[in-house]
Amino acid sequence: MLKIVLLGSGNVATHLFQAFRNVSVAKVVQVYGRNSSALESFGKETDITMSPKKIKDADIYIIAVTDHSITEISSVLLEKKGLVAHTSGSVTLNSIRAENKGVFYPLQTFSEGKKMDFKSIPILIEAETEGHYQLLHVLGNHISNEVHRVSSEQRKKLHLAAVFVNNFPNHLFHIAHQICQRENIAFELLLPLISETVDKIRFLSPKASQTGPGRRNDVDTMQDHLEQLENPLQKKIYHVLSESIKKTYEKEL
Amino acid sequence: MLKIVLLGSGNVATHLFQAFRNVSVAKVVQVYGRNSSALESFGKETDITMSPKKIKDADIYIIAVTDHSITEISSVLLEKKGLVAHTSGSVTLNSIRAENKGVFYPLQTFSEGKKMDFKSIPILIEAETEGHYQLLHVLGNHISNEVHRVSSEQRKKLHLAAVFVNNFPNHLFHIAHQICQRENIAFELLLPLISETVDKIRFLSPKASQTGPGRRNDVDTMQDHLEQLENPLQKKIYHVLSESIKKTYEKEL
Repeated sequence: MLKIVLLGSGNVATHLFQAFRNVSVAKVVQVYGRNSSALESFGKETDITMSPKKIKDADIYIIAVTDHSITEISSVLLEKKGLVAHTSGSVTLNSIRAENKGVFYPLQTFSEGKKMDFKSIPILIEAETEGHYQLLHVLGNHISNEVHRVSSEQRKKLHLAAVFVNNFPNHLFHIAHQICQRENIAFELLLPLISETVDKIRFLSPKASQTGPGRRNDVDTMQDHLEQLENPLQKKIYHVLSESIKKTYEKEL
Repeated sequence: MLKIVLLGSGNVATHLFQAFRNVSVAKVVQVYGRNSSALESFGKETDITMSPKKIKDADIYIIAVTDHSITEISSVLLEKKGLVAHTSGSVTLNSIRAENKGVFYPLQTFSEGKKMDFKSIPILIEAETEGHYQLLHVLGNHISNEVHRVSSEQRKKLHLAAVFVNNFPNHLFHIAHQICQRENIAFELLLPLISETVDKIRFLSPKASQTGPGRRNDVDTMQDHLEQLENPLQKKIYHVLSESIKKTYEKEL
């Protein structure tokens, strides 16, 4: 059985803990954290500690903390023999201060209190030796059907792409939400359209899926939309995205 | 039975035709269009014509053509007594040249060859008289569970919001697709994240769902991302969306 120590007590740590709960080949033998109240929720099911000196020996240490704390947290594992893997999309492998380094990056957005099926979440792994790759592969395969080796450079680019498919669209949903609120319209009216937007790209490429005034270079509608927007930043967003859409399709018009 | 004449032979006309196919209370008695090959596909199931003079008498004429052709097409119905409704999000009711005017706007993006369940698609209706409202309501209720009266002003704002939740996110998916292609990464790795992005806002508001470097004001990561982008328009998009996210949450940091 693979012994795992989780370092961190936030959303990623919680979701990983839940995923490992049903796996017989691996066991989270301890959670280390610095937030006592967040740690407590793990305490019913496994050992918890706030003391670096009390960290148990394990086969794999998984660091699930904010990016800028990874190096610092990893340094408490300097003396450990196990593999130390972080879970970040944008931090290099070498940011880890430990003898055996790896990356175990679940490409997903995790929310508090919302369970999810780990099986479909891509886990992107990186390691320095073939043996460590195998170890992370075995571990990943027990919780996901999508374990992939990617290089640091590819992981960095995927993290950038993730901002474009998650953070930015979500903010655009927020702007639409504000537009609806101002007019006393239920934002929920837009949910079927949002679902179809995402459904569509399973069948068609995003490039082929594009519709709307920008794609048709419908100048009147775009002008009208810009006049309806009051917030200068929202105007800028509308303008630059429309320009980019126009440029993508201009040869076709 | 309500007799319907459809004017137009594109995606919206096709999807509406399919939706009405299973409704006993309404029947598409004719499709009028100006594209003979597109018209043919309707010809197996109903009467088709390309001649304005041969347009049949009907209770409701539904105009499903591009926005800038609505006025022109409606003028062929000047002598008709039935209700003439267009299906556009952004065109006013008064753009219709006919005695009895209405709007029957399905708030959805339609693709060729991709069937969809009309039942969950909001149909936003507008009319000048209570009787015509009732007529559009009855018709809409037969194909959708979401028929709502909205004013011209609200419909205009919903159309603007639709650009923010459909056209713009889709273009961001395209940019992510390009980033993946350049690095030889399968875009499909991002699909679970995209699904969760949309799933999440059924439980949390988009404002509460926001994550990422912009929300945390993680300047280093944003700088690093900007340096990775080569296309100047993509840099601009990254910059302005990040600014807007930062501004939305700055009081919380």
